[in-house]
Order: sequence, then C-alpha cells, then structure tokens
Amino acid sequence: MDSVSNKVSGEPFNVAVPLYVQIAESLLERIRVGELIPDQRLPSERELSKSLNVSRMTLRAALRVLDNKGLLIRRPGDGTYVARPKIERQAAKLSPFTESMRSRGYQAKARLIIFERRLAEVSVASKLKVPVSAPVYYFQRLRLINKEPVLLETCTMPVYRFPNLETHDLEDRSVYEIVETEYSIVPHHSEQSLEAVSATDFEAELLGVEPGTPLMLERRLAFDKDGFPLEYGHDLYRGDRFRFVTEIAPLEMK
Amino acid sequence: MDSVSNKVSGEPFNVAVPLYVQIAESLLERIRVGELIPDQRLPSERELSKSLNVSRMTLRAALRVLDNKGLLIRRPGDGTYVARPKIERQAAKLSPFTESMRSRGYQAKARLIIFERRLAEVSVASKLKVPVSAPVYYFQRLRLINKEPVLLETCTMPVYRFPNLETHDLEDRSVYEIVETEYSIVPHHSEQSLEAVSATDFEAELLGVEPGTPLMLERRLAFDKDGFPLEYGHDLYRGDRFRFVTEIAPLEMK
Repeated sequence: MDSVSNKVSGEPFNVAVPLYVQIAESLLERIRVGELIPDQRLPSERELSKSLNVSRMTLRAALRVLDNKGLLIRRPGDGTYVARPKIERQAAKLSPFTESMRSRGYQAKARLIIFERRLAEVSVASKLKVPVSAPVYYFQRLRLINKEPVLLETCTMPVYRFPNLETHDLEDRSVYEIVETEYSIVPHHSEQSLEAVSATDFEAELLGVEPGTPLMLERRLAFDKDGFPLEYGHDLYRGDRFRFVTEIAPLEMK
Repeated sequence: MDSVSNKVSGEPFNVAVPLYVQIAESLLERIRVGELIPDQRLPSERELSKSLNVSRMTLRAALRVLDNKGLLIRRPGDGTYVARPKIERQAAKLSPFTESMRSRGYQAKARLIIFERRLAEVSVASKLKVPVSAPVYYFQRLRLINKEPVLLETCTMPVYRFPNLETHDLEDRSVYEIVETEYSIVPHHSEQSLEAVSATDFEAELLGVEPGTPLMLERRLAFDKDGFPLEYGHDLYRGDRFRFVTEIAPLEMK
C-alpha cells in the first residue's frame, strides 16, 4: 500500500501514516465543510482514484475508513452515497428526546418493548436509594426518528414515588413530562456519563445495526430538589446517528 | 435459548428480552456494586451456570455480552477475569490528560507518532480561521497509561501563533502547558463533541485493539479570550478504558 514517510522523535516507533488515512481525512473534511453533501452519490471508484491520483486499492482503504465511521452508505449495485450528518445532543443538558427531536423537524416515536414491575437488586436499590427488593418499574423503549430506530432506552423508577405509572402512555409521552404533570415532581439535577460500547445481538436487532457496531451508552441518575433519585436511565444511542456536544466555559478550562 | 415472556403494549413488537440479557445485567450489577472486583477470576462456566441455575449456553451468551462491553478479560487456558473499571474523564472540563492521569496515580506517557508542517485544507482553515494553504502543525500522539496505549490524539495548530513548536518536547509536556509557558497564550473556552466510532485498522494497531472496536471520538476546538482558535483536536479514546462524566446542574435541566 502507498505510504508516506513520517517524522518520529524520541523512542523509535515504527508506524507510518498511510496514504489511505490521509485520503480518508481529506474526503472527511470535504463532507464536513459541505463540498460533499448528504445523500450525494460519490463518483465511481475509477473516477475518484483518478481525480485523487491514488491507486484503487488505496482509495478503497480510504472509503473503508469513512464507511466504518458511518459516513458513507453503500448501496450494492447502485453506488456509494454520503450519509446524513449525525444528530446533535447536548451532553450537559437534560432535554426530553421527543421534544428536542420534534423541534428540529424530525418525526419522533417510541415503542414500548417491555414494561415490568421488578424487585430492586442490590445495585439498583443503592442507586435509587430504596430498600433491596423494593418494587421498581423497569421499562425499555425503542425511540424512532423518521421511522428509523436510533435509541434504546432503559429506565428504572421507584414504584413508591410513581404509583400506577403503567396507566400513562409511555409510547407517546416523555417520562419527564409524565413525572411533572401526573406526579408534580420536577427533576432538579442529574449525574450522567457517556461510553462507547459494542451492540450486543439483542441491541443490534432492535436498533437495526450489525452486532458489534459502536453505540453511545448514556447512563443517567436524575434527582429531585431534595436529592432523592427519581430515575436511573441506561440509554443506547446509535453511534452512526448521534454526536454529543458540550461547550467548555472559561471558568472550567482549568 | 431460554427466554422469558415480556409485556408489550401498543403496537405488537415481537421481541422477548432473553434470559441471557438478564443474567448479563445481573453480573454487570455485581461488578458495579463491587461484589465482583477488578482482576478477580470468575468461577468456571460449570460452577457459574450451576449457581445461576441457567444452561451453559445461556451463561456463555451472557458472558459474551459483558465481554463485548469490555468488562471481562479472557485469558485462554487460564480463565475469565473482571476487567478494570473505566477511567473517568470530565466531559465538561478541559483537563490536561497527563496531569489528570498522574494525579490519580497512573503512569502517563506520550509517544509522538507524527509531527509535520502542512498547508491548511479548506475545512481546517475554516476551523482555525487561517487562510487556505496557510501553514499548520499537524501532529499525532499516542498516550499510554501504565504502558498501555489508550488514546490517539491528533492536533492541528496554526504555525503563525506557535512558531517553532517543534523545538518543544511534545512527548513529555502537555500542549496547553507549552502554549501557556512558551507562547503566553491562555486557552479560554472550547467547543467539543463526543461520538462512538469504530477503530480503523490503523487506529486499532496503534491502540492495541481489534479493528472495529468502539472508540470514543472527542473533537475539540479551543479558543483564546478573543475568540481566535488555537487548536483543533481529534482524539480517539479506547471505549473499554474510558467513561466521560457530566453533571447537569439545576438551571440546565430544562
């Protein structure tokens, strides 16, 4: 494979930055700046390798990089298209999924996959500050945007605070809206984390991706104003569809 | 495979939550609450399937779930161990990697993979607010914690603001420390985003993981107090080693 020399200082480290990585980066930037736009069909491999002045093998390796990052859609027998840009979520804000998607013009829906009363295990009990074996609601919702499954949510909530939760419409209403309207409880603050994980077979089937595909796992523990936990969330976002954005303010730079 | 019934409301949706998912979840919680601790060897599959009262096939599927999430280390011919917990990064703070790792007792090192002067492409130029083809420094560093590669950083910085950057030791010093000490420029605020992506062959080789493994991609654009961009960063963290933590304050809950 073509490659260019690199400059290595300090300990010798025998890695060249291959040309295909540079080609991929340059195509990536053309997508980012909008020279190549979503749903645009790429030129054929022959044309593209000619215009970039690289071998087809190098071009294919570069396209594989973009493909792995979810930036291309390959339609066998048709061609390669630029994927739609990722949907942005504010990592440092708790914005209800349905409303924030609808406000951007997406059609948002939820399907309830499971809804159960369970007895809290040790770890759930300690998170939700309820006794071990206290009843909790456990439910999973598959969130769809424009009919495409993109997010698998798992919520655990203490029954004593939200009696008869099952009587409310969890397919069409946001949990936080139900919590506020039906139980007069206002979520006050939360702790959350983000991790890159692999889709299991079960998760992959629901989300319509291949097993092993990168997903963004958001864990969330939301509290009321007195510091009592309201909800433990474990949400899996499709890595190819979401980007989590934060801004770092001056005071937090150090 | 064993499975339990689930309760589905609304549109029929033909998915049961398999028993192996529940077993995996329960093992996961035992790891989270510290009943199973890092570097602890799990009982044999025979013992474990007996104590959990499930078939070995179900147990294996459950272990695969944890394995995919990077929570287990399998040592062929030896046994299965609980992986070390993920390292936490504050998503809403800009804390220099080396210092924040050292303050937690990790041995942190950097290897310079590539250091080049390049001409800014359209997209880089627009991010860094320099003319197209203006010279920029482009460098990649592989960050190691306790000798294990965990992070591949790519930085692009405008040459006109940081003349002779190559004369400073980028293997042993933090970029922000060099920027402050040598150039008297203080990073003021930044925009950043997090995405779950797949490791390419090149990235996987450097990070010592399998191609396709989930990585956390952090993009970062840091500015000085006048709003001029100082650095564009594109950092790939091993998904099995990092968790990004944010807290959502009361005012940001809506």
